[in-house]
Amino acid sequence: MSKKIKRIGVITSGGDAPGMNAAIRAVVRACSYYHISCYGFYNGYNGLINGNFEELDARSVRNIINRGGTFLKTARSKEFRTKEGRAKAYEVLKNEEIDALVLIGGDGTFAGGQIFSHEYDIPVIGVPGTIDNDIYGTSHTIGYDTALNTVVEAIDKIRDTASSHDRLFFIEVMGRDAGFIALNTGIGAGAEEILIPEEDLGLDRLLDSLEKSRRSGKSSSIVIVSEGDKIGKNVFQLADYVTQNLPYYDAKVTVLGHIQRGGTPSCFDRVLASRMSVKAVELLLDGQKNVMVGLKDDDIITCPLDNVIHEKPNINKDLLRISEILST
Amino acid sequence: MSKKIKRIGVITSGGDAPGMNAAIRAVVRACSYYHISCYGFYNGYNGLINGNFEELDARSVRNIINRGGTFLKTARSKEFRTKEGRAKAYEVLKNEEIDALVLIGGDGTFAGGQIFSHEYDIPVIGVPGTIDNDIYGTSHTIGYDTALNTVVEAIDKIRDTASSHDRLFFIEVMGRDAGFIALNTGIGAGAEEILIPEEDLGLDRLLDSLEKSRRSGKSSSIVIVSEGDKIGKNVFQLADYVTQNLPYYDAKVTVLGHIQRGGTPSCFDRVLASRMSVKAVELLLDGQKNVMVGLKDDDIITCPLDNVIHEKPNINKDLLRISEILST
Amino acid sequence: MSKKIKRIGVITSGGDAPGMNAAIRAVVRACSYYHISCYGFYNGYNGLINGNFEELDARSVRNIINRGGTFLKTARSKEFRTKEGRAKAYEVLKNEEIDALVLIGGDGTFAGGQIFSHEYDIPVIGVPGTIDNDIYGTSHTIGYDTALNTVVEAIDKIRDTASSHDRLFFIEVMGRDAGFIALNTGIGAGAEEILIPEEDLGLDRLLDSLEKSRRSGKSSSIVIVSEGDKIGKNVFQLADYVTQNLPYYDAKVTVLGHIQRGGTPSCFDRVLASRMSVKAVELLLDGQKNVMVGLKDDDIITCPLDNVIHEKPNINKDLLRISEILST
Amino acid sequence: MSKKIKRIGVITSGGDAPGMNAAIRAVVRACSYYHISCYGFYNGYNGLINGNFEELDARSVRNIINRGGTFLKTARSKEFRTKEGRAKAYEVLKNEEIDALVLIGGDGTFAGGQIFSHEYDIPVIGVPGTIDNDIYGTSHTIGYDTALNTVVEAIDKIRDTASSHDRLFFIEVMGRDAGFIALNTGIGAGAEEILIPEEDLGLDRLLDSLEKSRRSGKSSSIVIVSEGDKIGKNVFQLADYVTQNLPYYDAKVTVLGHIQRGGTPSCFDRVLASRMSVKAVELLLDGQKNVMVGLKDDDIITCPLDNVIHEKPNINKDLLRISEILST
Repeated sequence: MSKKIKRIGVITSGGDAPGMNAAIRAVVRACSYYHISCYGFYNGYNGLINGNFEELDARSVRNIINRGGTFLKTARSKEFRTKEGRAKAYEVLKNEEIDALVLIGGDGTFAGGQIFSHEYDIPVIGVPGTIDNDIYGTSHTIGYDTALNTVVEAIDKIRDTASSHDRLFFIEVMGRDAGFIALNTGIGAGAEEILIPEEDLGLDRLLDSLEKSRRSGKSSSIVIVSEGDKIGKNVFQLADYVTQNLPYYDAKVTVLGHIQRGGTPSCFDRVLASRMSVKAVELLLDGQKNVMVGLKDDDIITCPLDNVIHEKPNINKDLLRISEILST
Repeated sequence: MSKKIKRIGVITSGGDAPGMNAAIRAVVRACSYYHISCYGFYNGYNGLINGNFEELDARSVRNIINRGGTFLKTARSKEFRTKEGRAKAYEVLKNEEIDALVLIGGDGTFAGGQIFSHEYDIPVIGVPGTIDNDIYGTSHTIGYDTALNTVVEAIDKIRDTASSHDRLFFIEVMGRDAGFIALNTGIGAGAEEILIPEEDLGLDRLLDSLEKSRRSGKSSSIVIVSEGDKIGKNVFQLADYVTQNLPYYDAKVTVLGHIQRGGTPSCFDRVLASRMSVKAVELLLDGQKNVMVGLKDDDIITCPLDNVIHEKPNINKDLLRISEILST
Repeated sequence: MSKKIKRIGVITSGGDAPGMNAAIRAVVRACSYYHISCYGFYNGYNGLINGNFEELDARSVRNIINRGGTFLKTARSKEFRTKEGRAKAYEVLKNEEIDALVLIGGDGTFAGGQIFSHEYDIPVIGVPGTIDNDIYGTSHTIGYDTALNTVVEAIDKIRDTASSHDRLFFIEVMGRDAGFIALNTGIGAGAEEILIPEEDLGLDRLLDSLEKSRRSGKSSSIVIVSEGDKIGKNVFQLADYVTQNLPYYDAKVTVLGHIQRGGTPSCFDRVLASRMSVKAVELLLDGQKNVMVGLKDDDIITCPLDNVIHEKPNINKDLLRISEILST
Repeated sequence: MSKKIKRIGVITSGGDAPGMNAAIRAVVRACSYYHISCYGFYNGYNGLINGNFEELDARSVRNIINRGGTFLKTARSKEFRTKEGRAKAYEVLKNEEIDALVLIGGDGTFAGGQIFSHEYDIPVIGVPGTIDNDIYGTSHTIGYDTALNTVVEAIDKIRDTASSHDRLFFIEVMGRDAGFIALNTGIGAGAEEILIPEEDLGLDRLLDSLEKSRRSGKSSSIVIVSEGDKIGKNVFQLADYVTQNLPYYDAKVTVLGHIQRGGTPSCFDRVLASRMSVKAVELLLDGQKNVMVGLKDDDIITCPLDNVIHEKPNINKDLLRISEILST
């Protein structure tokens, strides 16, 4: 039988994402609602190792639901990947009598948590927070919806100047391993082409498509490039290649970069973060462990961390077809 | 066997919603992709009756994916509710040899379309566009996600001034029959209370809750009121009632009104509108009729218009519980 | 010779305005830069009276430059209008050895400060913070530029729905005594008519103008009404009057209300708040008192509080002419 | 005596800027108001040379006041720099009986217009439109205020992630020859350092400042770099240099790029564009020529194009001092 949970620790780890503050708030308030204590550790697993934490109550998380970033800060901890690091972390938890952890982050975070949980029998629950949406077991990760809006707003701005100058723009968006952001923002912003790691369009098809677009009378064009695109060229080389082959294009490159990680979370992300995090606390109280909460349709579901870590979510390839139809 | 579709008409009808332009664009471009003609009728069913329309090609819908409202305009047509009105509309379609219609709107739009389709054997496909999300057969309607963000941004602004002055704000949001907007934005903006038509919280519980909130040290509070709330008082009377009973509160009222209908659509709404509308055209080409396209999880599904018209979607009451936990 | 200043108090008072946090931050950091102490009093003059304050250092004001509202909170203090109230306030300052005050607020704030300064020989410097821009001695008040953008964004949204439905909208904006917001946002949003307290357009001219607009083929129209407009009708009565006389109009009303006070300050307001507040501290260190800092062209100037309190700024009536030309 | 003006041509030229559409609209509507004809030429001077134009009336410019970019498009014309190019342009104007031109753009645009005006006695009036604000004779150019807000919003987003990860960010903003954008957004976003072309801070002082900032307990820092900064290193080299010397910093680079040119214009830019452009038409009707309209305090003034072309505006160096005080 599982031990009664009295004190929960919470961290944010890995890349930050809008909505992480909303998630922390919901963990804290759910603890408060169920009359258990909540401790926030700073800088991801490093805070666990170094004992850098603070007790949090309902008031500590006032007026943060709409703030980007994470007030607990985040990091990728090398030390936690070592046995010694995890041993230190366990000492801290033991001393503070913390019974369980809520881990807000991505699959790297969960992999670390899973090992730690097995080594020291500490129940952990994962809450998926990353803008990339590349996590198995949930249709949406916290921060993804906000990032889509941030990117689409940025492309709308670039479209203004692209149209005014009849230019071709290559816009690199985040997504090292997955094209979720590229594909959805490409459709949402009406991009002429979308390059994602999941599908190698090929340079020839890109040239064909841009030539066709030109012939159809379009004077400006936008190509969205996922940072992890596997076409063998980075976005600057790609732009060079295209202008060498299609010299009538005046091509420019924009790398959107870290603006994609920040900003006020969308309503969707705030509600998602709130629901997932309340559920994470309730699962611990129910004696569950080593699962991640996820969204499926309108329900909060769970998925074993083992699956989350070892499987990859699929992008909806039907969207590629939609994109082709719409860029007619 | 169904007649081969060569010409499709499209209207937007009922209340306008952000993403309707993206939906029209996708209908037009899908028609173009499948080499059929597309006609846009102005002012909803009135354009059908009066023959106020225009042929649309891929270029007609350039640079509109990010615009609020609907360039085809919209209306609630009284004349279409009469047999004579629909007869005129049919004459127009017959003269122009238009074989089928895509109807972008809400359940009133679909009810009219359903009758018309039965009377004159014109296949119609519904595309759900309304900010209220109160349509059976889809988890999301076009415009709903954008409206959630618009409302949450507005409440964030009001929270700034509420906190600065230690005030209680009653904020009325749209949703005559359904509390989707109120419930989600209430959670998203961290409201202290949420009043929706689906649940009569009761005036006493509202007072209790506000008293408790005051005692817990909160100096400002936000109450979200769905315009269709059934508590028997409008939002101004509600504010008066509360200040009479809890005189330490300095209460203010904001009715958000029509700003909720406008604005640049979110990425989610643009992609949703694009996917649904391409599917609507493809369904017609496949010989289907009298269904509405909808979203379920990440798939575009269909639902018979009969069901859409006669059933009501349920709000997720679990969100009320989440709201209570988080407003601790 | 004036006493050497070692400790400065700062308050925000009156209606809150975006940029007040940026102003407080700049007061605090300027104090820190010049090695003097800074004390923030809560809730305007009430904090002075009740001794509700906190010492602030450079770190206390981190990450607030972009936040709406005022973390020192604000109030309109009745007690400070009494001799007894001001006597209490003086006791607090004397006990804490606070030598001077920076007052961030509007003319009501400055009037109280002026009296207090004369009674107890405490140097005060005013920093104009109010969204209404109705303060003599500066071309811009802190928060005004942000409010203009907030209003224009809201009207843009309403324009989407107005155009989609061929509607006439009456939109009430803030400005009880001055039409600055109405006039500038009316031009900025392309309103068909603008009603301000400084000029009585008259009901007949409004009807004429709306009839002309209709005849010119415009199907939707926006009328901006300053809340202090002197036409003798409130915005709802105005809408009724117009629809009775011009029944082809489908008129709607939106009262923008308190969303106008909140939100992230614009770059202009952040820079203005920063410059004015640094100057306020430097003026005190220079032995000056009882002046308000203001903006003229690109310079920070000063104006005696006596003038600020007794004179009214003029709106630029040339803008009315521009509005008429542009609504052609 | 100057010829009576009956037909006016308008172009947008050089880099596009938000508010150019509002400027075109005001030119067109002022022409309509004064009963003269207005012709819009496409692609800057190229449209003049190629006769690519359209007559514009009040309706042609509906619903564009809030759109980024320029619907007349813009270009930098090489051909117009040749005598032959200008001769062709003159033929077009003569054939269409166009008497005068309104030129919306930057100093390159005005230099070309000035030569053309002298060669062919065509009165021209300049309207300053560029996000860089680097034009003599006006305190503000059209688009500058919007760009400041765009940049500050982007930096706010980056601050979220910088704070979450304790990172140092180098952010490159536009401004090849002038530091207006860098300086104002640096203050507005609370940057720790600002590098502008007008002042060579020196690499040593940058290192000192970042070291000091670290010691004061700041864990994240933002350095704004104007693209024209003269420090001898581009922004990537700068980041490398700093991390080599201050290895405890985890430095990242973001080049904001073309998002700075687009977006919905701010209220300020819409009103400025409206006022300047009405004035430009009125000046032509008054027989004036070869001046640029400008803003000074709250008045629209004029400045001879000769001065505009040959002089440089000064940035307000006092802002550097403010920045230093505030980054304490």
